[in-house]
Amino acid sequence: MGELRNDRLLRALLREPVDRTPVWIMRQAGRYLPEYRETRQRAGSFLTLCSTPELACEVTLQPLARFPLDAAILFSDILTVPAAMGMELKFTEGEGPSFPGPLRSAADVEGLGSPDPEVELRYVMDAVRLVRRELDGAVPLIGFAGSPWTLATYMIEGGSSSHYRFTKGMMFAEPRLMHRLLERLADSVCAYLNAQIRAGAQAVMLFDTWGGLLGARDYEDFSLQYMTRIVAGLERRADERQVPVTLFTKGGGAWLEQMADSGCDAVGIDWTVDMGDARRRIGHKVAIQGNLDPCALYAPPERIREEVAGVLAGYGMGSGHVFNLGHGIQPFVDPAQLAVLVDAVHALSEPYHQ
Amino acid sequence: MGELRNDRLLRALLREPVDRTPVWIMRQAGRYLPEYRETRQRAGSFLTLCSTPELACEVTLQPLARFPLDAAILFSDILTVPAAMGMELKFTEGEGPSFPGPLRSAADVEGLGSPDPEVELRYVMDAVRLVRRELDGAVPLIGFAGSPWTLATYMIEGGSSSHYRFTKGMMFAEPRLMHRLLERLADSVCAYLNAQIRAGAQAVMLFDTWGGLLGARDYEDFSLQYMTRIVAGLERRADERQVPVTLFTKGGGAWLEQMADSGCDAVGIDWTVDMGDARRRIGHKVAIQGNLDPCALYAPPERIREEVAGVLAGYGMGSGHVFNLGHGIQPFVDPAQLAVLVDAVHALSEPYHQ
Repeated sequence: MGELRNDRLLRALLREPVDRTPVWIMRQAGRYLPEYRETRQRAGSFLTLCSTPELACEVTLQPLARFPLDAAILFSDILTVPAAMGMELKFTEGEGPSFPGPLRSAADVEGLGSPDPEVELRYVMDAVRLVRRELDGAVPLIGFAGSPWTLATYMIEGGSSSHYRFTKGMMFAEPRLMHRLLERLADSVCAYLNAQIRAGAQAVMLFDTWGGLLGARDYEDFSLQYMTRIVAGLERRADERQVPVTLFTKGGGAWLEQMADSGCDAVGIDWTVDMGDARRRIGHKVAIQGNLDPCALYAPPERIREEVAGVLAGYGMGSGHVFNLGHGIQPFVDPAQLAVLVDAVHALSEPYHQ
Repeated sequence: MGELRNDRLLRALLREPVDRTPVWIMRQAGRYLPEYRETRQRAGSFLTLCSTPELACEVTLQPLARFPLDAAILFSDILTVPAAMGMELKFTEGEGPSFPGPLRSAADVEGLGSPDPEVELRYVMDAVRLVRRELDGAVPLIGFAGSPWTLATYMIEGGSSSHYRFTKGMMFAEPRLMHRLLERLADSVCAYLNAQIRAGAQAVMLFDTWGGLLGARDYEDFSLQYMTRIVAGLERRADERQVPVTLFTKGGGAWLEQMADSGCDAVGIDWTVDMGDARRRIGHKVAIQGNLDPCALYAPPERIREEVAGVLAGYGMGSGHVFNLGHGIQPFVDPAQLAVLVDAVHALSEPYHQ
């Protein structure tokens, strides 16, 4: 494995000095890229794309060929874990993921398997190994998983939802059963991330897409508690370097202090949080990832640069900031607009690292 | 018009002493009630239900026949205003509202009309007058409108959206055009609410369902600014009483202080905000409405009572709290569960008003 030539991301996540603010983009390997759409079509289905290491590797590397990004993130889907636990997973064109047999009872929860990541999720580990070999030390590779709460919402609703009736119903009416499910998910996610680290992931991230649906106390009980357990169980060294872990709760702006206390190295924030406020609240405890509004990429180039400048100024001096959008890049964005953003981050961030 | 026999709501919104905490429920006239579904079916379409004063009055009163609620809220839809400005509005079964001709250009915005509420929205005013007559002073009637930002999202996207690509695109790429649209909407909404007050609404509320999609600065510029203008333009006296105004931004927990500074009488909060924190932040400036998780109504009765007790204790002693859910009641809720909630609010809130 080649020496890591660009370690800005890892250094910033650990608040070590950097020359410029590193930048990567959530969903940087995705539908806004014509080459992604081409590979996706060749794969035939989204599941084939995720589960074929060569194809997953190909799309993981695509954005790096276009933009001077400071990290690769494994192309995969958070629902690989419930699928490996035995749930049938379908992706219907235009409708997103679904589980035709959603979890509703104690028997459903007890029937879930405890996957061995090197067996049931071997294709993910093979993709990680392949990407690391292809990257050959150019930039670090980020591994990831969904948070237990977020995975539970899909498993209980059977797909995306607007009411979260069954998930919240289980939480309010059968809290013990919900905790049992979340414990099982925390165990599986922890094993999954550790396997990604052993396979070569140099940083890991937990995506808590739906933690923001919870009330303040419920967020701590049903989402953060289980992310904290996972963080505590991670094997956070590889290649004689620390493997930083980032927590991202979309809509979690109210709970930054609690997230920063979880043992993680960095907290991801969405665009509804003011970056300056976030840094004042988090202080030097952990790094911060974020947080430009993904829709700022619909603005003219000069406005994109202004918005980037605003986020950089919000964080202010010193290391500990990983530039990103506040949520995934949208499928309709012109890739040329992302080039403007990436260049602006590198060009405008130098003064903050002197 | 009969004397108002239960004025708890109006008193609590103005932080005047009350015997118990008043309670009403967002979407209390709605699909969870079998009698609503019956009237809705008889009407044939959702638009007919909204635009026929007798039917709108009938469903407005239905929840009051079942539960000892402290207010009626007019049955209507926030999209009546864009429709009155000339946009064709459709409600498709199971898909929600849509505007087949969404706003995308300056010409589209300039082409909008400036409706006279007693002409183009006469059916709403007739419904207000009818409901007031039927209520005969039992409880106050709340009128409402959508916030300019929230209406703009529907008008620009052409319906519900998951990306808000066009709305945010206009905001970032053509901010002046967006401000022009929001100004026109603010004028129309202000005239609409004043007409509701003249027709008999005894309190009014602005629903900013999508303000929470905005970054901190953008929320002030594109949503709160226009709600503040509307508040300043309201004729806030009727029947020799003050007409209190409530602002509710879903996902607006970060901006409670700014909302409280808008000139409103009360701020509505969703369930992601801790009620105790909200009161500490808002202090005695304005009243607070909220904020139980709507999904708590899926819990057993004893748990519902515990959750109600928690919200009441969070607000603490004294007037200034209007109990509500943190968002609309869900269509799947058993009405018997709502009865438990309403009774619990009245029974458990007495000690906070001694």
